[in-house]
Amino acid sequence: MPSDLFVGLIGQKFMGRAHSNAWGQANRFFDLPRRVVLQAACGRDGDELGGFAARFGWKTWTTRWEDLASDPKLDLVDVATPNHLHLAPALAALEAGKHVACEKPLAGTLSEARQLRDAAKRAKRSKTFVWFNYRRCPAVALARQLVAEGRLGAIRHVRATYLQSWGTPDAPLTWRFQKKLAGSGAHGDLNAHVVDLARFLTGDEIHEVHGAVARTFVMERGIPGTDKPGKSDVDDALLFLASFKGGALASFEASRVATGHLNANAIELNGEHGALRFEFESMNELLFHDQTLGPRTAGWRRIVATSAAGGHPYARNWWPDAHLLGYEHGFTNMAADVVRAIEGQEPVVPLPDFADAFETQRVLEAALVSAKERIAVRLSEIR
Amino acid sequence: MPSDLFVGLIGQKFMGRAHSNAWGQANRFFDLPRRVVLQAACGRDGDELGGFAARFGWKTWTTRWEDLASDPKLDLVDVATPNHLHLAPALAALEAGKHVACEKPLAGTLSEARQLRDAAKRAKRSKTFVWFNYRRCPAVALARQLVAEGRLGAIRHVRATYLQSWGTPDAPLTWRFQKKLAGSGAHGDLNAHVVDLARFLTGDEIHEVHGAVARTFVMERGIPGTDKPGKSDVDDALLFLASFKGGALASFEASRVATGHLNANAIELNGEHGALRFEFESMNELLFHDQTLGPRTAGWRRIVATSAAGGHPYARNWWPDAHLLGYEHGFTNMAADVVRAIEGQEPVVPLPDFADAFETQRVLEAALVSAKERIAVRLSEIR
Amino acid sequence: MPSDLFVGLIGQKFMGRAHSNAWGQANRFFDLPRRVVLQAACGRDGDELGGFAARFGWKTWTTRWEDLASDPKLDLVDVATPNHLHLAPALAALEAGKHVACEKPLAGTLSEARQLRDAAKRAKRSKTFVWFNYRRCPAVALARQLVAEGRLGAIRHVRATYLQSWGTPDAPLTWRFQKKLAGSGAHGDLNAHVVDLARFLTGDEIHEVHGAVARTFVMERGIPGTDKPGKSDVDDALLFLASFKGGALASFEASRVATGHLNANAIELNGEHGALRFEFESMNELLFHDQTLGPRTAGWRRIVATSAAGGHPYARNWWPDAHLLGYEHGFTNMAADVVRAIEGQEPVVPLPDFADAFETQRVLEAALVSAKERIAVRLSEIR
Amino acid sequence: MPSDLFVGLIGQKFMGRAHSNAWGQANRFFDLPRRVVLQAACGRDGDELGGFAARFGWKTWTTRWEDLASDPKLDLVDVATPNHLHLAPALAALEAGKHVACEKPLAGTLSEARQLRDAAKRAKRSKTFVWFNYRRCPAVALARQLVAEGRLGAIRHVRATYLQSWGTPDAPLTWRFQKKLAGSGAHGDLNAHVVDLARFLTGDEIHEVHGAVARTFVMERGIPGTDKPGKSDVDDALLFLASFKGGALASFEASRVATGHLNANAIELNGEHGALRFEFESMNELLFHDQTLGPRTAGWRRIVATSAAGGHPYARNWWPDAHLLGYEHGFTNMAADVVRAIEGQEPVVPLPDFADAFETQRVLEAALVSAKERIAVRLSEIR
Repeated sequence: MPSDLFVGLIGQKFMGRAHSNAWGQANRFFDLPRRVVLQAACGRDGDELGGFAARFGWKTWTTRWEDLASDPKLDLVDVATPNHLHLAPALAALEAGKHVACEKPLAGTLSEARQLRDAAKRAKRSKTFVWFNYRRCPAVALARQLVAEGRLGAIRHVRATYLQSWGTPDAPLTWRFQKKLAGSGAHGDLNAHVVDLARFLTGDEIHEVHGAVARTFVMERGIPGTDKPGKSDVDDALLFLASFKGGALASFEASRVATGHLNANAIELNGEHGALRFEFESMNELLFHDQTLGPRTAGWRRIVATSAAGGHPYARNWWPDAHLLGYEHGFTNMAADVVRAIEGQEPVVPLPDFADAFETQRVLEAALVSAKERIAVRLSEIR
Repeated sequence: MPSDLFVGLIGQKFMGRAHSNAWGQANRFFDLPRRVVLQAACGRDGDELGGFAARFGWKTWTTRWEDLASDPKLDLVDVATPNHLHLAPALAALEAGKHVACEKPLAGTLSEARQLRDAAKRAKRSKTFVWFNYRRCPAVALARQLVAEGRLGAIRHVRATYLQSWGTPDAPLTWRFQKKLAGSGAHGDLNAHVVDLARFLTGDEIHEVHGAVARTFVMERGIPGTDKPGKSDVDDALLFLASFKGGALASFEASRVATGHLNANAIELNGEHGALRFEFESMNELLFHDQTLGPRTAGWRRIVATSAAGGHPYARNWWPDAHLLGYEHGFTNMAADVVRAIEGQEPVVPLPDFADAFETQRVLEAALVSAKERIAVRLSEIR
Repeated sequence: MPSDLFVGLIGQKFMGRAHSNAWGQANRFFDLPRRVVLQAACGRDGDELGGFAARFGWKTWTTRWEDLASDPKLDLVDVATPNHLHLAPALAALEAGKHVACEKPLAGTLSEARQLRDAAKRAKRSKTFVWFNYRRCPAVALARQLVAEGRLGAIRHVRATYLQSWGTPDAPLTWRFQKKLAGSGAHGDLNAHVVDLARFLTGDEIHEVHGAVARTFVMERGIPGTDKPGKSDVDDALLFLASFKGGALASFEASRVATGHLNANAIELNGEHGALRFEFESMNELLFHDQTLGPRTAGWRRIVATSAAGGHPYARNWWPDAHLLGYEHGFTNMAADVVRAIEGQEPVVPLPDFADAFETQRVLEAALVSAKERIAVRLSEIR
Repeated sequence: MPSDLFVGLIGQKFMGRAHSNAWGQANRFFDLPRRVVLQAACGRDGDELGGFAARFGWKTWTTRWEDLASDPKLDLVDVATPNHLHLAPALAALEAGKHVACEKPLAGTLSEARQLRDAAKRAKRSKTFVWFNYRRCPAVALARQLVAEGRLGAIRHVRATYLQSWGTPDAPLTWRFQKKLAGSGAHGDLNAHVVDLARFLTGDEIHEVHGAVARTFVMERGIPGTDKPGKSDVDDALLFLASFKGGALASFEASRVATGHLNANAIELNGEHGALRFEFESMNELLFHDQTLGPRTAGWRRIVATSAAGGHPYARNWWPDAHLLGYEHGFTNMAADVVRAIEGQEPVVPLPDFADAFETQRVLEAALVSAKERIAVRLSEIR
């Protein structure tokens, strides 16, 4: 009988729900070395919090994150708050000797991310985790295995986009559109994911950013609960070009105004011997082009990454072949891997800790620097 | 009975075949105001030239382009040679008062392109044309009509890639890998097409380039007809970011080493009210997302652009619905439009002349400048 | 505070897991008029049962279904057993005044299905349900709404296939390959689903079967736990043609040996004014062709059926747009609708009861009769 | 220098244009042992015929097919007329010692097809051909090679549909809707193609038809050139089920009222070791599922069948990789193979002669018999 792992959660909105579900489902579908106890939930809206806690089975709740972060009963504190509220609770939990799981990006600013990385380094007893959940889509995890096995050879191209379209003019001025709360816009929210995926899949690091451009298409948005407009001061879209140490060229694009795309997290790698492509909107599938089959029969093939017999990551924990998984399963798979990692077991594919997430944050920062200090070539100069 | 239009062609390889076919087919499938006569063909390889001319029905042939360019019998000279051999024959033909159709890019260098633009301006009696054939894929022509009708609203994103993979290490050192002959590599060959498409579809002009990166992955290639290696001094891939005057952000990528892609000329536009996507490997189809249908039933739809009843461009000249067209039909459609334009009739969609193609060349040059003089942000600066 | 709904489950394998998860998740994601209590689980394998019950949160467990079916504490009995074990527990539960939810097909034979339908009719206090879970994929539920709104006009074609490929020669002789336990093979397992979908989507009934063919490709399979072969006496594949009362022509195909397909539950409807297509392997998407848009812009469009703003069925209960659902969500959506229906509320789309499922069973029987008593035309007769 | 092959064509409409183009293009793109001369064209509409002949380069023309069929100058007579007008010209041409190429289906009725087969058998000096043009789509020809090489193992399923939607109520009562002229409707027009493909790809013969259903959805259509309605007496759709000698189960469906589909000629084969799928609307692609790769990486792969290096059929005669072919190229490829076959050379893949096409006609007839004499199972019998 596995011993209990007491978890406390800060956050009760979108990510609060996704994490709650993950902690609740992990032991139902995985044989884990610890039994997760949904011990304490924390959120700012006390009116909603009781209902939230009851719904997902959190035993207690509080509106004071300081109490939760230092609650002696807890083994792990899960930070699922807006970006500007990662730092304080995570630092407090690390100081209290807890393991900490933090939503991505690690923080809204490089400085805060650095503080978190450094604190994690000092907290020898604590393990840290960042919820880059897409690593644990089975198709993505399979892609990483294929790259690591050398099926692509040297990588030449990485092409990543994360396109959404909810940033229409009628979307209200939530924290996601305010720099002081979010740090950046589509960039920190969406490019964070694809930069992590690019690093994760290639096993390589970016060493140069060659150009970037950011734009805010909708400058004013309605302040929630009022009839007044307020200023959006974050990017609606940010694109940048980069190189990896190993020589691959990369492009990244994040947008909240890419009409036609809802949640188009997509990444493609082209290597000497083959290519891989993942698109979240077909999240159970991995597209693989194996050039070694020769020009007569080579072609992009659609692998449905749900085969227990085929050893697909996480497949044996869920349903029969092609009885598909959804968005939330990435979180559940991650919760299971976190429990394993806390007990010193290997996760199915590598888990990102604060130090790893800080490397992603550095890339995001380099793109911001490039976009701000760019020296564009004006066409008027070319005659 | 339409009068004759006497055409002379310079070039007998890939483009020579494509243009010959187009001139031969135009009157078979279009009712045109002139009857095209395949009068004279020119090529450097005299051994092959006779067979080539006989095959496609050219009445005479010569290995001296100077003779062809000044042949008084000809109404139009078609230049289908490598990039460094556009300038001289085209200038000569303009001076001789001919109409001139030139392969893309207009030239290998900005300077040569400028000379051609200026000469065309001076040659008042001559009409000029550049073979940006993809404009005349019916699906592309339809896309332009939809944009021009305002179906997308203001454009926010242009995303264009032209990916091929034939640049493997065993591909020989043809003119396409030599800067003095080609000007650039994938950039001038492939980005030329997608920059033209981006300008054509949006009806807008690029005014800034925000960054670029070029790379030669295969530095040495075998010199044809020898067992010696030679140096490739052009880009195998070039990526750049840009803005349009109207505010749209754009990315462009050309590669000859993008394993998995054979001829992936693809462009997508996201606007306020909708989005369009064209992929040449499904060239008869246009993908259209009409956001005005509302979130319940909006979605990307696949229009098969072959409907005469639907008024699809060029559809009534070919076969019944969904009896698909191929690559060569873009050339035939263009040849037909050239004949119309010479007689003062409207082409189905705008035809690019030398002045128009020079604008594309300026964009290509701006990207080269950016790639060369770039001030990259090194990750080592971000700590 | 909603009152409790005490549920008992019979079955601990694939469907036992899927149903357990659904009952556990329903109140987490839906605001329901009753709180589901996972009260009692039943299974034949006592060694596994305790672990199964603990994992999913069932409070008690027993290996005797008779005890569970008559347990006075229970409000609803859920039968998730092999086909030959539906009849007795379901009858007992109805006699004990419970609501009953039964796995599909209603039974292995028409006679048993008839007994269940008749018993349900007599049990005035009980509501009955059959787990045709695919009705509650949001994309399928949306399809039904569009048909009901007349977006397709009169239906002319229904084309349904449910293709799998796990029936390879090395698959063991489980109950699914034995007629006395399963009733039939791919037919009862897979055609049951697509016949239900065809009836559900069209709102029409089949009135004639025009021909059928069944085949057992693998005649012998290994008896589990032994090294002996046994005889498979069910169909590996069964195809049939039918007409609907409203005039539509229909084809149905089920196979366990359709190499290349894992769980390809697909149905298409072509009507006077439009067409719809659903493929389970892209289960979040509905393909819709709206011919009323006219030949210029009509085309198949891919609606991602996850939009709360668009009113897509069940969308507001889950995640933001295009944060996809998986296989299990159809069951959870159904569990939620069952709870609503028990309280007299409307389900999102109609729920099948025993009488409804019996109509599907009649169609399956007609196909079996046609396949058995068929008068094939032999080519040798045609000279 | 190859000697001339004098061709005469009967028919000046859709097929007349397609065949004219094919004869004209064959020598431009293929190195053939004979030079095709477009000698004589024949059509009933003398007003149009001269223009048609001039456009495609036919040297002479006549409105009397009897003259053409016996013209001593001709080597080959090509019959591209409506179905009821195949018999007489083809018989006459055979009697005159010509080679004969006939449009598909071989005839509108089995009896006429039989006469043609028998006449062809007697005409020892003549070679006969039937324009089942889809065999010569490169992707289809590649599929046949892969099946013949055993890549699929024993075939279990053949699933073929040919769906169009032009048969709306406003389509006029042309010969295609009249039994005495066409023989049948969608069946003879479209099922003819997919039955030929099924036989061609499997290399196997159908030996039983298990059921069929035909329906005329639009009973009255406008008589062309009048304002009067006339009766359509052919099927708008016909479906049938069949078995191959080798054990495969097959389904066939043809429709002119399948809204959403324009020219959806599609066929799939599932075998023990793999599967293949071809869809004409993506005619340059072959989908191949190679199960021998194992469950980890097996998946449907999209082969673009345009690779000269890969040895794809006909690829070296056309354009570089993925510079796509269209509908008409199947005819040109066939014309080239006909010229080769006349000189005793091997075609790229087998060419159907009258005897072969008669076997397809027998299958069509068996389906008609089944549809007419069917003993349907009525649902009212199943209680």
